[in-house]
Amino acid sequence: MTGWVKIVGLGPGSDDLVTPQVSDAVAQASDVIGYIPYVARIAPRAGLTLHPSDNRVELDRARHALSLALQGHKVVVVSSGDPGVFAMASALFEALEDGPASWRDLDIEVLPGITAMLAAAARVGAPLGHDFCAINLSDNLKPWTLIEKRLRLAVEGDFAMAFYNPRSKSRPEGFARALDLLQMACADARPVVFARAVSTPDEQISVVPLNDARPEMADMRTVVIVGASNTRIITGARRKIVYTPRSVLP
Amino acid sequence: MTGWVKIVGLGPGSDDLVTPQVSDAVAQASDVIGYIPYVARIAPRAGLTLHPSDNRVELDRARHALSLALQGHKVVVVSSGDPGVFAMASALFEALEDGPASWRDLDIEVLPGITAMLAAAARVGAPLGHDFCAINLSDNLKPWTLIEKRLRLAVEGDFAMAFYNPRSKSRPEGFARALDLLQMACADARPVVFARAVSTPDEQISVVPLNDARPEMADMRTVVIVGASNTRIITGARRKIVYTPRSVLP
Repeated sequence: MTGWVKIVGLGPGSDDLVTPQVSDAVAQASDVIGYIPYVARIAPRAGLTLHPSDNRVELDRARHALSLALQGHKVVVVSSGDPGVFAMASALFEALEDGPASWRDLDIEVLPGITAMLAAAARVGAPLGHDFCAINLSDNLKPWTLIEKRLRLAVEGDFAMAFYNPRSKSRPEGFARALDLLQMACADARPVVFARAVSTPDEQISVVPLNDARPEMADMRTVVIVGASNTRIITGARRKIVYTPRSVLP
Repeated sequence: MTGWVKIVGLGPGSDDLVTPQVSDAVAQASDVIGYIPYVARIAPRAGLTLHPSDNRVELDRARHALSLALQGHKVVVVSSGDPGVFAMASALFEALEDGPASWRDLDIEVLPGITAMLAAAARVGAPLGHDFCAINLSDNLKPWTLIEKRLRLAVEGDFAMAFYNPRSKSRPEGFARALDLLQMACADARPVVFARAVSTPDEQISVVPLNDARPEMADMRTVVIVGASNTRIITGARRKIVYTPRSVLP
């Protein structure tokens, strides 16, 4: 039996946002590896071993996947959203690069998924309808000074912004500092979208002007979208619609 | 009959990258509206009217969709990739905002899709595995000076970058200028990914060092990904793997 690894994106939560390509990979797998809540989304069946693991052990998980594949297992590594956006794909390639040469002969594929910022954007309209940045606000793996630098440059370039991992119990302060910085640098009432657990039964979406945005509006299940200076709200529509126009006037 | 508009993302090309949510919407539609090659992806059936239209008539297309929905039609507006990323969603909301008040009572939804940069990234590894920007290189609707400003700031912030609409017959010069700017500003050999028609029979992917990137490597079906300064290539693997690590050292 020839093993393989497929690093797949399960989308933000709802099964109707999982691509057929990913569903097929799961159906063919002998093993599924990933963070506990993501593995919990996979239906158990005969011949499939589920390997849920805790947060912050991404490299262990990656090495486990590669080792099993070398033994002939058909391994699906699950991420929420898209595996290439602040998820397991980079961790797997870090492990691959540092691991035994034999791993490099493995059949390894990344299967894309609907990433949280795009699912969140769709729920409110099209706030990422023009140039935008995606920034991971966690300073677990990079210095906070770099996050602040990127925020300032994104404001200067008038990009819309999507923030992943804005806030967690172990990092309650960072997002407050990020909001302070944005409120000072932008000094306007552009829309901010807080989208929690999009497409799940726990979904909560709120849209507030930047000056009213508060740190406690986000938690670790939230993706935050901050508009560009020309991002607009359409009032009178059934729902509040937030969108960034395609044009920027000279 | 109550009409509605769903602005849906068909993904980059392959049917196995279309979400079940989007397939269901198409199955329920009475009308499908969009750019000719995207409407051509929808199978004809009794009760479904296809309305293909040419490029650059996005606002006409949006008004057509809204008018039909007001008459009770169930209208799917198709985009390639994700409708909220340089596609039809923003155009539809522009038309909505400028149109008759009656349109605001319509049931309008955006259904996300796999956007080209994430499909392209998955094919080569995880080049967008850390903070990144998405920039539309077309200057049809914004001044070229703003594009150059955003490129400079993205380099200064050491973001990875994904470029949509890098080059077309009517705009042959812009991408050459963008590459010149990047080659001057970065002065290194970070990987550049040219991904054309990802997931279709015409798919072509190449990875070159920035200093070897040439304008003619892109056309209007290409998405271009430029790595950050720490984006790496794993050699010796079956395919050339390009990835951006999760960590940035202080």
